[in-house]
Amino acid sequence: MKKLIIASTSTVHGGSYLDYLLPALENHFKDCNEILFIPYARPGGISHDDYTANVGLAFAKINKAIKGLHEFENSTEAIQKAQGIFTGGGNTFLLVTQLYQNNVMEILAETLKKGTPYLGTSAGSNITGLTMQTTNDMPIIYPPSFKTLGLIPFNLNPHYLDPDMNSKHMGETRETRIKEFHAFNTTPVLGLREGSWLEVAGEKIILKGSLTARLFQQNQTPEELAPETDLAYLEM
Amino acid sequence: MKKLIIASTSTVHGGSYLDYLLPALENHFKDCNEILFIPYARPGGISHDDYTANVGLAFAKINKAIKGLHEFENSTEAIQKAQGIFTGGGNTFLLVTQLYQNNVMEILAETLKKGTPYLGTSAGSNITGLTMQTTNDMPIIYPPSFKTLGLIPFNLNPHYLDPDMNSKHMGETRETRIKEFHAFNTTPVLGLREGSWLEVAGEKIILKGSLTARLFQQNQTPEELAPETDLAYLEM
Repeated sequence: MKKLIIASTSTVHGGSYLDYLLPALENHFKDCNEILFIPYARPGGISHDDYTANVGLAFAKINKAIKGLHEFENSTEAIQKAQGIFTGGGNTFLLVTQLYQNNVMEILAETLKKGTPYLGTSAGSNITGLTMQTTNDMPIIYPPSFKTLGLIPFNLNPHYLDPDMNSKHMGETRETRIKEFHAFNTTPVLGLREGSWLEVAGEKIILKGSLTARLFQQNQTPEELAPETDLAYLEM
Repeated sequence: MKKLIIASTSTVHGGSYLDYLLPALENHFKDCNEILFIPYARPGGISHDDYTANVGLAFAKINKAIKGLHEFENSTEAIQKAQGIFTGGGNTFLLVTQLYQNNVMEILAETLKKGTPYLGTSAGSNITGLTMQTTNDMPIIYPPSFKTLGLIPFNLNPHYLDPDMNSKHMGETRETRIKEFHAFNTTPVLGLREGSWLEVAGEKIILKGSLTARLFQQNQTPEELAPETDLAYLEM
């Protein structure tokens, strides 16, 4: 039975890394002493070691040890044997490229479908969707494919931002970009605002946090979904 | 001798399509009666015909006829014989995919190097750089390559936005995204603000408009370049 927490952001404004999620994570990872961390998205280009150390500091608050996937000789085995797995944020193009280059995209999907508890934030959440095609990130590296884990039956847009009606900027709004995606793709897209997350338990996909989320479907008016909505109905 | 206008945006706040550029375009395209328009980036997913018609309305103000590349049987010949060429904005992933699928990326680069006057706005400007890897667009389609025309010796970030110090949003700023690019790539990146453009005449690459532009180089502090700066010195 799938057991996932899929968060828009690691950090909310004014908070510290992961702190708003720690109560949920304590329960989510209650059977884990050690969590496997996938540092591939490397925010700002920091090293895998530094990123893993930062994550370790946050998880120490709920008495979990963290080990980076890059520390293992055999990545496949590390994923299969992990008690719990966390993929952090950064650049989604880099994350997806590294997952393919290290040949672990498929084994990660299989492992999570079997029930290993998972946390994703930002880029680490993006990859739980069908494709990475609704990321906000810059294409700093060319991935072998945009296909991702497919653990939920739609795509995510983390850090979702409402249009700023006072802005003089002429670049596309987030909503316009997602509309462009739907000119060529049928996959639904969930705009997940900072502070929101999805809790996936088996077939249920529940919106958590205090905010609504914005659901975009092809040729339909976007709708606001209330917290506690179950998005499992998007399964085709 | 190359002859290019590379603009951050087609439209500045409060203005209408291309109007702020028309005086420069009148001179730039002075020897052209008809301009070939490349509508592949299709903003918002509108049709090639509709996009071309909109562009025709703007160019009618300076008495230029517009014909869409999609109206020609032979795209290669259309590009080679064009008096002038304009590539409009929209989604860069879509634009680059279509240029490759229609087999015109190379012929477009060759033709523009020989001196056919060119205008690019937004996505149509992005493609004049070495790669499309510093676009702001969403990866709505998977292009065969991120490599672009290479008409200037650096990459562009059109619609460049300064960090908003009052924002509570935790997503990456534009500067952070470009820094991530430079963690893995050496290509310089020019952040071109809305209302700025580059005028390329042979070897010269002059910053035009009233604003400064922000130049990012790997392992260097970003710098602000004044209008009339010649960026040709970035040639390696």
